[in-house]
Amino acid sequence: MATIKDVAKEAGVSVATVSRVLNETGYVHEDTKKMVEAAIQKLNYSPNEVARSLYKRESRLIGLLLPDITNPFFSELARGVEDVLQKQGFRLLFGNSDEDPEKEQAYIHTFIQNQVVGIVSATNPAGKINYENIAIPTVFLDRASDEEYAVYADGREGGRIAAHEMIRRGSKKITILKGPTYIRPAQDRFQGALDVLAQADVEFSVVKTDAFSYQEAQKRAKGMFDLYPDTDGIIASNDLVAAAILHEALRLGKSIPDDIQLIGFDDIPLSSLLFPSLSTIKQPVYEMGKQAAQLLLKLIKKETISEQHIQLPVQFIERQTTRKVEDDG
Amino acid sequence: MATIKDVAKEAGVSVATVSRVLNETGYVHEDTKKMVEAAIQKLNYSPNEVARSLYKRESRLIGLLLPDITNPFFSELARGVEDVLQKQGFRLLFGNSDEDPEKEQAYIHTFIQNQVVGIVSATNPAGKINYENIAIPTVFLDRASDEEYAVYADGREGGRIAAHEMIRRGSKKITILKGPTYIRPAQDRFQGALDVLAQADVEFSVVKTDAFSYQEAQKRAKGMFDLYPDTDGIIASNDLVAAAILHEALRLGKSIPDDIQLIGFDDIPLSSLLFPSLSTIKQPVYEMGKQAAQLLLKLIKKETISEQHIQLPVQFIERQTTRKVEDDG
Repeated sequence: MATIKDVAKEAGVSVATVSRVLNETGYVHEDTKKMVEAAIQKLNYSPNEVARSLYKRESRLIGLLLPDITNPFFSELARGVEDVLQKQGFRLLFGNSDEDPEKEQAYIHTFIQNQVVGIVSATNPAGKINYENIAIPTVFLDRASDEEYAVYADGREGGRIAAHEMIRRGSKKITILKGPTYIRPAQDRFQGALDVLAQADVEFSVVKTDAFSYQEAQKRAKGMFDLYPDTDGIIASNDLVAAAILHEALRLGKSIPDDIQLIGFDDIPLSSLLFPSLSTIKQPVYEMGKQAAQLLLKLIKKETISEQHIQLPVQFIERQTTRKVEDDG
Repeated sequence: MATIKDVAKEAGVSVATVSRVLNETGYVHEDTKKMVEAAIQKLNYSPNEVARSLYKRESRLIGLLLPDITNPFFSELARGVEDVLQKQGFRLLFGNSDEDPEKEQAYIHTFIQNQVVGIVSATNPAGKINYENIAIPTVFLDRASDEEYAVYADGREGGRIAAHEMIRRGSKKITILKGPTYIRPAQDRFQGALDVLAQADVEFSVVKTDAFSYQEAQKRAKGMFDLYPDTDGIIASNDLVAAAILHEALRLGKSIPDDIQLIGFDDIPLSSLLFPSLSTIKQPVYEMGKQAAQLLLKLIKKETISEQHIQLPVQFIERQTTRKVEDDG
């Protein structure tokens, strides 16, 4: 198997230069970079070697904190983070916080004890943990406060799009399921939907949901149709909740999308497997994970960062739980 | 906040004794244990303190290797592992292998470099990595070979149950979807189904599926009904595959379970959210993760281990994709 030395020889440069190219650290001339990349390709050099050679020098550990890995949204985020970091020779220390500030604090503590060089956090309910005192580069994922480095999707616009699509496809009595108040993206999308509904000629009601889990969603779905039996459009707080609502609506013999339209949020893999398949607001989940990892790598390498916040766009995915309309743009 | 010293004082024992109770190391008299536990409860002592005090002494890192965390089966396993280890003050170094032996090897290498004290592996395609040379306690999860410590579900019995339920509920032309040959649990359940079908008065055919992913499943589902348009019973290799089959069958206007019965495998959370909800063979996934972590802790503490292999039972979960019958036991 080719080594970093073979690559350096093939490209006619030093090992240090190859290392700089591989790790994107320091300046390398564009032509030199191309020669190194050609040599890597020619020799089929595996970046795992990089991991091995670099590991000895310093910790290559990064802490990843999620609310709950069994929620498909978070496992997809984790995948995006891991895919970038693994290629760069970093390894993930991983924990579920369960939205519990004490558990979160304990994990951060052990991350520090294990000398992680960076943290990606998709948690921090209502900013209860003060990350500012942690002298380790940290990127927030999905959940942002103004002072911190963060990658997230445009939840507010997502909420607006959902409400807009609901209205233009003919729903008149709309129910919004509002996610937990302590979770900012849930509030953003709720607020976005509200922006549009408040201006429109429709009735609407708001139902609170406390958590993002399957179990919670199933419970809530049953209660919702008792409360609002004549609702004809439901904007769910995420796809898991939407799946539970869909299941319950079909169980009650309602026709979808004719009686009720339904729009989820996230576009988790499950959503296309439902029948009817779920119309939803897609977050670029995997991409969010990737960009958070890339931003963290820049912070670790002390590179200049142009934007502290990276907001990614969302889009409406039309499937079978919304009615067809002529495209009015 | 209470410290371990406060607990020791309250219980009238030494700090070392409290530590033994908390970490389940060494012998502690049952009465002493009760006193310590009462003191812990009274003082609301947080076991996170344990993590902190123990961390300084030695590495509390454990490596967890999975094929792909975005598969809900594996994220549930991971959750079981983490919940046990977190309470005992251990932390997880985590990686996805993507069934790629090179990636697996690279992760194991860095686990060792980070001085993990144990490894839980839910991967190792066809035993390509020789774990015997790794001088670190290792427990295999879901995938076992004969020589190693392992926790898994009774796949063969699961396959038998699926075939038996299919037949007694009236299917006559059964299709089995056979998972990847390099994955042992997939082969076990296939073989179990075959055991029963070979003895029964039914026709059956076998379709190969190469992977356990959503995307693969969707592709396969479309092809399957072209090949076997008059099949009236499908035993899927897992619930993801079953969900894709269900979706495609409904799209083709087939009535479920009247035209076709369908049984999955795993009982992932998605399965109860499908409509009709999916009948399946339930693996105790979370429990498997927990027991693997507990077995690993015993290995790490050099405790006597009565069984090298822990095989957990599976059960048929009757939902709406199979027809109702009188219970004949």
